[in-house]
Amino acid sequence: MPQYPITARNRVRRLPKRGHYDRKTVHAIIDEALVCHVAFAPGGVPTVIPTLHARVGDSLLLHGSKASRLMKHLADGHPVSVAITLVDGIVLARSVFHSSMNYRSVVIHGSGTPVEDEAGKLAALEAFSEQIARGRWADARKPSRKELKATTVISIPIELAAAKVRSGPPLDDEADYDLPIWAGVLPLGLRADTAIPDPRLGRGLTTPAYARRYQRTPAGRSNAS
Amino acid sequence: MPQYPITARNRVRRLPKRGHYDRKTVHAIIDEALVCHVAFAPGGVPTVIPTLHARVGDSLLLHGSKASRLMKHLADGHPVSVAITLVDGIVLARSVFHSSMNYRSVVIHGSGTPVEDEAGKLAALEAFSEQIARGRWADARKPSRKELKATTVISIPIELAAAKVRSGPPLDDEADYDLPIWAGVLPLGLRADTAIPDPRLGRGLTTPAYARRYQRTPAGRSNAS
Repeated sequence: MPQYPITARNRVRRLPKRGHYDRKTVHAIIDEALVCHVAFAPGGVPTVIPTLHARVGDSLLLHGSKASRLMKHLADGHPVSVAITLVDGIVLARSVFHSSMNYRSVVIHGSGTPVEDEAGKLAALEAFSEQIARGRWADARKPSRKELKATTVISIPIELAAAKVRSGPPLDDEADYDLPIWAGVLPLGLRADTAIPDPRLGRGLTTPAYARRYQRTPAGRSNAS
Repeated sequence: MPQYPITARNRVRRLPKRGHYDRKTVHAIIDEALVCHVAFAPGGVPTVIPTLHARVGDSLLLHGSKASRLMKHLADGHPVSVAITLVDGIVLARSVFHSSMNYRSVVIHGSGTPVEDEAGKLAALEAFSEQIARGRWADARKPSRKELKATTVISIPIELAAAKVRSGPPLDDEADYDLPIWAGVLPLGLRADTAIPDPRLGRGLTTPAYARRYQRTPAGRSNAS
């Protein structure tokens, strides 16, 4: 299935031309992003929390402490909505009204199920580690059985999902193009500075390649597609 | 009031040491961020949407098309939660379990009221414009009466608010410090590349200073504090 079904729940309503429902676009945005925002509504009252995510195939994974309110709520199967947003630039139109952002975002609706088995949990934690820094899992001290037990992993099917994308130059009202006002795009992106070694770093340990040349681009990291 | 009241609604539950309730910390995070994530729950079902925001004093402002489902929902006074997140770095601990992010986030709970009067709306749109690029309002073509009418502005009191901040090096289990594993922080930030002039840019128009030296730091821009 190259395309997600378009339903009342995931259809892009505002500016529908910006909507994309193909797996490739949706997955690429999820994979490039470092954080997501999870909305849940205990007692019908909405709350939103930033957290890390990972993707394995058509599942979005979230994790947290077993004691976390969010994790307990999601493990109980309550509805959830997750937004993942990449900011690509500021669009300065001649008019304030048409000024905008270039962005790529995904919103997923659904509900989660806890990953209960130890092997599944371990695979999920590997996916989180690789989502953050590809190559890190091989180097780091793996989770102990106790640490695994203290962690809840939630899997949400990526199905009621839609991407929304704006790119390119400003689009002004035709009459405004004659105004003597500069217009254009300021490209933006999440960039890494030089890695800062831990003050307690052991002697002779050099910065690994994934920390030296870190970038959040689809080419710079990867997950199972 | 230098500090927001701590209640059951805004208290940081997970890792309470990372919680901050002082106005200065909360405002600085809101002002530096370019996007927020708004959670609402029509019929009790949570939805989350990324959008721009601005701050004027102790009010968080959102805006959108008069036709937007979110704007109508918020104008009706339904509860809302807004998260604003700045990603500052990746924390690579020796163990996967203690690996983390450096971040500054704010979550606000409350409900909004529409800004109805024309002067208030215009001031809000100025705040949005300045939030995106300080100095732009003076240059751009201001909103017409018709454009103002097509725009809904929602004001949410910043009151049930909390910031959550992690900074600094990894914190590993004491026993793990002896492992021959590199650890440290990869600093991250939203950075601007060279501005791209509109292909239809009028002759003789040069890139303004705010687009040439653009940065998302508190010093790089400002709002009424």
